[in-house]
Amino acid sequence: DNRVLQISDGTGGKKKVVILGTGWAGASFLRNIDTSLYDVHVVSPRNYFMFTPLLPSVTCGTVEARSIVEPIRNIVRKRGGAFRFWEAECYKIDPTSKKVHCKSGDGTNADANGEFVVDYDYLIVTVGAKPNTFNTPGVAENCHFLKEVEDAQKIRKSVMKCFERAALPNLTDEERKKNVHFVVIGGGPTGVEFAAELHDFVNEDLAKLYPDVKKYVNISVIEAGEHILTMFDKRITHFAEDKFKRTGIDLKTNFKVVKVSDKTITMSNPTTGEIAVPYGLAVWSTGIGTRPIIMDFMKQVGQGNRRVLATDEWLRVLGCDNVYALGDCATISQRKVMEDVDSIFRVADKDNSGTLSVKNIKNVLGDIYQRYPQVELYLKTNQMKGFHDLLKDKETEELNIEEFKKALAQVDSQVKMLPATAQVAAQEGAYLADCFNRMNTCEENPEGPLRIRGAGRHRFKPFRYRHLGQFAPLGGEQTAAQLPGDWVHVGHSTQWLWYSVYAR
Amino acid sequence: DNRVLQISDGTGGKKKVVILGTGWAGASFLRNIDTSLYDVHVVSPRNYFMFTPLLPSVTCGTVEARSIVEPIRNIVRKRGGAFRFWEAECYKIDPTSKKVHCKSGDGTNADANGEFVVDYDYLIVTVGAKPNTFNTPGVAENCHFLKEVEDAQKIRKSVMKCFERAALPNLTDEERKKNVHFVVIGGGPTGVEFAAELHDFVNEDLAKLYPDVKKYVNISVIEAGEHILTMFDKRITHFAEDKFKRTGIDLKTNFKVVKVSDKTITMSNPTTGEIAVPYGLAVWSTGIGTRPIIMDFMKQVGQGNRRVLATDEWLRVLGCDNVYALGDCATISQRKVMEDVDSIFRVADKDNSGTLSVKNIKNVLGDIYQRYPQVELYLKTNQMKGFHDLLKDKETEELNIEEFKKALAQVDSQVKMLPATAQVAAQEGAYLADCFNRMNTCEENPEGPLRIRGAGRHRFKPFRYRHLGQFAPLGGEQTAAQLPGDWVHVGHSTQWLWYSVYAR
Repeated sequence: DNRVLQISDGTGGKKKVVILGTGWAGASFLRNIDTSLYDVHVVSPRNYFMFTPLLPSVTCGTVEARSIVEPIRNIVRKRGGAFRFWEAECYKIDPTSKKVHCKSGDGTNADANGEFVVDYDYLIVTVGAKPNTFNTPGVAENCHFLKEVEDAQKIRKSVMKCFERAALPNLTDEERKKNVHFVVIGGGPTGVEFAAELHDFVNEDLAKLYPDVKKYVNISVIEAGEHILTMFDKRITHFAEDKFKRTGIDLKTNFKVVKVSDKTITMSNPTTGEIAVPYGLAVWSTGIGTRPIIMDFMKQVGQGNRRVLATDEWLRVLGCDNVYALGDCATISQRKVMEDVDSIFRVADKDNSGTLSVKNIKNVLGDIYQRYPQVELYLKTNQMKGFHDLLKDKETEELNIEEFKKALAQVDSQVKMLPATAQVAAQEGAYLADCFNRMNTCEENPEGPLRIRGAGRHRFKPFRYRHLGQFAPLGGEQTAAQLPGDWVHVGHSTQWLWYSVYAR
Repeated sequence: DNRVLQISDGTGGKKKVVILGTGWAGASFLRNIDTSLYDVHVVSPRNYFMFTPLLPSVTCGTVEARSIVEPIRNIVRKRGGAFRFWEAECYKIDPTSKKVHCKSGDGTNADANGEFVVDYDYLIVTVGAKPNTFNTPGVAENCHFLKEVEDAQKIRKSVMKCFERAALPNLTDEERKKNVHFVVIGGGPTGVEFAAELHDFVNEDLAKLYPDVKKYVNISVIEAGEHILTMFDKRITHFAEDKFKRTGIDLKTNFKVVKVSDKTITMSNPTTGEIAVPYGLAVWSTGIGTRPIIMDFMKQVGQGNRRVLATDEWLRVLGCDNVYALGDCATISQRKVMEDVDSIFRVADKDNSGTLSVKNIKNVLGDIYQRYPQVELYLKTNQMKGFHDLLKDKETEELNIEEFKKALAQVDSQVKMLPATAQVAAQEGAYLADCFNRMNTCEENPEGPLRIRGAGRHRFKPFRYRHLGQFAPLGGEQTAAQLPGDWVHVGHSTQWLWYSVYAR
C-alpha cells in the first residue's frame, strides 16, 4: 500500500524521538525534551493534553471542558514549530525494524485509509490504559466511564436527562427513584470524587431547579473491597466513609457488581447473595486495563505472560532496545536484591577475600541504596538507623556470603509497584526527558550507580518517585490530603494546594 | 396503557395554557404570559432557550455554547415555580379532545415508554421547523446542519478533524485540499455567516496552528439562485459578494446541489452540467421544512393540501379552536381584500344606499387599514398619499360596488408572507402573551377592527410585524445592516447593534 510510507527525516542527523500519546507522561516528556538535540514527533489520537484531576468537576459543570485541556498545536506553536504532531492512533509497534504503524481516526470524509508508518531511533510509549470492565457483562453497553473529556460531557448531559425524566408526569415513586438513582462502581479517587461532586451538584443546583425531584435522588457507591480510597491513609478512608454516611451517599462495600443491564445493576455479597437494583445512570470506575497495542507489543518482546508492560528502573522496556514506556501503560520492574545478591557480594568484596568487612560494605552502600531502593525503605520501615542494624546479630567483623544473604533476605518485601497516577506519570516524563537531554554528557561521565552484574557505572540514576501527597475532594469544598511525612489533612481549600502539585 | 394519563389540574379553575416548544416564539410567549391568570405548562424536547443569532459563532469557538443558552428550569426558578416544564416531544396534537400526546426523549435507562398526555384549554404551537434537504440524496447522511447547539459543536470538532487529517504525512496535494475544502450549501444569512466565521477562524487562528495546511484551505458557498442574501437589500448582497470575492471565499451561484456522497458533492448548472467536487466538510443550510407533527396536524384541521400551517392574523390556527401557532412552524394567512370586498362595501354603506360617499369610506378607513394592512402598504408602495388617491380616476362623489372593487383590485398584490426569522417569532410570542393577559378586558371592550363579515369588533388588534432591521455578519467584524427606512449600513461593530434588537 503506497499510503504506508515513512516520514522522511528532514532534520539532518538528529536522532528521531517518537512519542506515542499526549497524556501526563507524554506531555511531561514533551515539555522537557530539548528539541535542539532531537527530531521530535508526537503521535496521538487526542490532539490535546488534559488536566485529569479536574475531570470529575466537568461532569457537574463546575469546570468547563475547555478549561482543562491544552491543545498540543498550541504547544507546537509556542515552541516555534520545534516538533511535529500527527493526530493518529498507533496500532502496532515494530521494535525489530524500529517503526510504528499509525492510522488516523475516522472522520466523515476520510481519504484513503489514513495509514502511515513512522520510523524512530527512540520510541517513548505513553499510550496510557483503558477502563477495565473485568469482562463484567453489560458494562461496556450501559455504563459511563470517566477517562476522557467526552465521557465527562456525556455524564453531564445524562445527569440532566435523568432529572428531566424523573420530573415527568404520571410516574410512580419507584420510577422516579430509579431515574435519579446514580450509581458509582468503584471506590477509588475518581469514583469518590465524582460521587462527591454529584452530591454537591444535586444539593446546591439541581435541588433548586427540580424541587419536586430532589427527594427521590439517591447516590450509591459500590466497592468490592472492605473500604473506599484504600490507597490513602486509613484516617482519610474513615473520614470519607463517615462523611458519605452523614451526607446520605449510600456506600456499599464488599459488593461486587456481576452484571449491568439497561435497567438494573446486579451485585453480590457473601451475606445477601445477588441483588439487582434499578438505576438511572451508572459510572464505572474500577481501575485500568491494558490497551490492545500494549498486549501485542508485550508478546513481541517476550512479556506475553505478564499482565503489565515491564520496564527497568530507567523506564526502558525489558526485552527490546531504544523503547521506553512510562505512565499508566507500563510499570517499573524493580530489580530484586536476592536475584543479584551474589553479584552484589562480589562487587563489594573488592579484595576477593570471600568475606565482606564493614568498610567493604560502606564503599558500595550508596550504589546499593540507589540501585535497590527497597533496602533503604526496609531500614526505614523497620526503624533501623542504617545498614549496620541489619547486621546486628552478627558477631564477627566479617560477613560471608551466607550471612550477607541472611541479612538481606527480607528487604525485597519492600518492593512496591508505583500507583498508576498522574503524579507518577508526570515525574517519569520529566525524568526521562532530562536523561535524554544529558545523554551525551552522561555517556562520558556516568552518574548512575555501579553496574552490579556488568562493569562500570550506569549512565543515569534510576527513576525515583517523589510522592508529593495525594488528595481526594470529598464534596462541600472539603478535600482530604495525604502529604509526605505521615501528614493527613482534611479541610477546606486544600484542593488548590493539590492542584499546585501539578503546577509548573 | 396506564402511562397515558392526563396531568391533573391542581391550580383550581385557571385555564390551562400548554406551550409546545422553547424557541424564540415559545420562550417569548412564556416570558410575557401572566402566570397568575393561567396554569401554564411547557412541553419541549429541549430544556433550554437558545440565542440562535450566535449559533454560527459557536462553530468556530468565538462564543461558548453555554453562553448562548438559557435553561428553562432557570426561568421556572426565577418565576418562583409559576409554570411547569416537561422535557418531552409532542408527537400528536388532538384538537378534537383538546389533548397533546407526548413522549420523553430516549435515554440509556428509559423507564416504561415515557409517554403521557396533556390536556389544554389553549394550545400554543411553537415547535419550529426542521432543516429542508429537498430530498437531495445523501444530504442527511453526509452534511452537517446548523440549527441546534449540538450541530454547532459537531461542526467545530469536524473542522479541527479536517485540519488534523490534512496535516497527516504522505498525502497528495489533492488529498490535503479535499480534507480542508469546506462547503456551505445555501447563501442565506446562516450559511453566509458560517462561511465568514470559518474564514476568520482559518485565517486568524488555524493558520497559526497548522501553518503547513493553510495553503490548501478552500471555502465554497453554493447557492441555487442568482445571488446570496436575497432577503436583504441589493446593496448588501453586492457588498457581501464582493467581500467574499476579495477574501477568497469561492461563491458558486446558480449551482444546484443534486447529490452528496461521503467524498464528493455533485452540483449542476445550466452551462457546466453536473460536476462533482471533493470536500472535507459540508454544511447544509438551504431553508426550512415542515415537521411531521405539523404535517399530521394540518391534515386533521383540513389544511392537508397546504405546505405550511396557516393561522389568521390573530395567530389562531385556521380550522380549529383554541390552538395558536407562531414562529417557523406557521405562517399568517392574510385575509384578502377582494375576498371580502362585498362585505366591506356593505359595512361602509351604513345607510344601505348602494353607493359609498367619501365620508362613508373615511368612517371605516381605520378598520380597513388594520384588518387589511396590504391596503396601506399598497398606497405607500405606489407613493399615494391616502385612500382618495385610489379613487382619483373617479368622477362622481359616490362609488358603486363595481367602482369600489376596481379601485381595490390591485391591493392584494402587496400581501407578503412574513419571513421565518427569530425577530418575527419573538414579536409573535410577545404579542400573543399580551392578548392572553388582556383577554378579559378585551372581551368586554374589544380593541380590534370592525368584524367585516360578522358583527361588532374583534377583541384584539391583529398581529403586526415591526421590522427592526436585518443584520448579516460578514467576517472580519464587518456586519451588513439593513435598517427600517431604507437605511443600509456596512461597518464594524454593527453586530452588537444587531444583538440589541433582541435585547430586552
